[in-house]
Amino acid sequence: MEAKAATRLYVEAGLGAGAMLALAPAQAHQLRAVLRLAPGDAVALFNGRDGEWRARIASLTRDRATVAVEAPLRAQEEAGDLWLLFAPVKRARLELIVEKATELGVSALCPVITERTNIDRLNPERLGAIAREAAEQSERLSVPELRAPLPLMRLVTDWPAERRLILCDETGAAPPAAAALEALPPGPRAVLIGPEGGFAETELDALRKLPFVCPVGLGPRVLRCDTAAIAALAMAQAVGGDWSAARLRRPAGQTATRG
Amino acid sequence: MEAKAATRLYVEAGLGAGAMLALAPAQAHQLRAVLRLAPGDAVALFNGRDGEWRARIASLTRDRATVAVEAPLRAQEEAGDLWLLFAPVKRARLELIVEKATELGVSALCPVITERTNIDRLNPERLGAIAREAAEQSERLSVPELRAPLPLMRLVTDWPAERRLILCDETGAAPPAAAALEALPPGPRAVLIGPEGGFAETELDALRKLPFVCPVGLGPRVLRCDTAAIAALAMAQAVGGDWSAARLRRPAGQTATRG
Repeated sequence: MEAKAATRLYVEAGLGAGAMLALAPAQAHQLRAVLRLAPGDAVALFNGRDGEWRARIASLTRDRATVAVEAPLRAQEEAGDLWLLFAPVKRARLELIVEKATELGVSALCPVITERTNIDRLNPERLGAIAREAAEQSERLSVPELRAPLPLMRLVTDWPAERRLILCDETGAAPPAAAALEALPPGPRAVLIGPEGGFAETELDALRKLPFVCPVGLGPRVLRCDTAAIAALAMAQAVGGDWSAARLRRPAGQTATRG
Repeated sequence: MEAKAATRLYVEAGLGAGAMLALAPAQAHQLRAVLRLAPGDAVALFNGRDGEWRARIASLTRDRATVAVEAPLRAQEEAGDLWLLFAPVKRARLELIVEKATELGVSALCPVITERTNIDRLNPERLGAIAREAAEQSERLSVPELRAPLPLMRLVTDWPAERRLILCDETGAAPPAAAALEALPPGPRAVLIGPEGGFAETELDALRKLPFVCPVGLGPRVLRCDTAAIAALAMAQAVGGDWSAARLRRPAGQTATRG
């Protein structure tokens, strides 16, 4: 399909014309077995620092691939600054939150332990891979940072005062999200989503007293935590976030539609 | 957990004090094996017409349950009027779209066949069950109607002129969603999401010429179709939709938090 974008791959190494890079075994597998590419085919590379570069597959076996970096495609852009604080939930919904948050431009994924959080282990390798893949698909030039889990109340005690914390308040007491977000001053922001059982009353009371907290309502229905995360992040980007920015255009012949 | 809402079940039958209803086998299984309820336990019932009613389990075996309807909990509310037009995609993402659209208050789910739609079969029973379950979880009093698939161009040829069609335009040419939605007059609306490969240029050209079509942009990144559907529905409800309505309160002791 002509409209298909070049395959984008995240790499750790520095990017520059003439560099020869070894890809990860999973990437070699993806190129060969999933995408059926071959030596000579073009891919696009990014590393979160050096922009996006066109590269060509130099060698490709079952689990090894090398690529030759050729020319720059896009300059590195200023990454957005939006954190997502989320209570770990069961695997499928957690992975969905990481994938969708990445697509929606989150810069830091911050797991928080709340009173009713009943998941105590994360798989950072797996979640990191999901974030990388979502960044590749979404044309981002960076991968969100996955932080170590912290107790919610410790995190907000040590909070950078200028960063607004958008609290998704499921009690029905908060003003609707659109109005609340419009009233926020410019500056860095974070979205906070509670666990499956909701926040405890004591947590909500403490959060509402903090000067940087902005409670928002997400409508009259009860949303699952993954739905709430996606809806709140979309709202945060649409009202005061980066949705007013023009889409970064890719070179001709590489449109930006993905499934 | 005290804060847990009563189990809500969708039924087809009419609801009124004293009615004795047989539940579906899957519901009997859910009550007994998943939720470990027993005769005498309370549940809440709704059917999309008669509001929400408290009922009590009268008998419960492996695949049969009868419930006695006792008293009304909530009056039937006016259902929202928001359609989602979506191109069928692979199963996992399709099911996610149906679940999340239901949580976000969609009244009609309308599969549309576009030029680049490459899925030609849906499983209406499975999708209907997902919508019913999401309605139960989200405290809705209705289940969205799942329509039969129609070619997109036939659907818009026969379109009710007063219903605005919010076109999620991934080309970067549309105004940002918040501004575009704020400019819409009040009235019924629909959201249209394209297939994995995006709309064809001819489709976009034809859609943009229709007087009821409102193209919106969903930010600078490339969103998967399920992400785009959830983000656009959240925006449509938040700006001019029902998110400004107060949450319907349930009786004391039944708060509305779910995972």
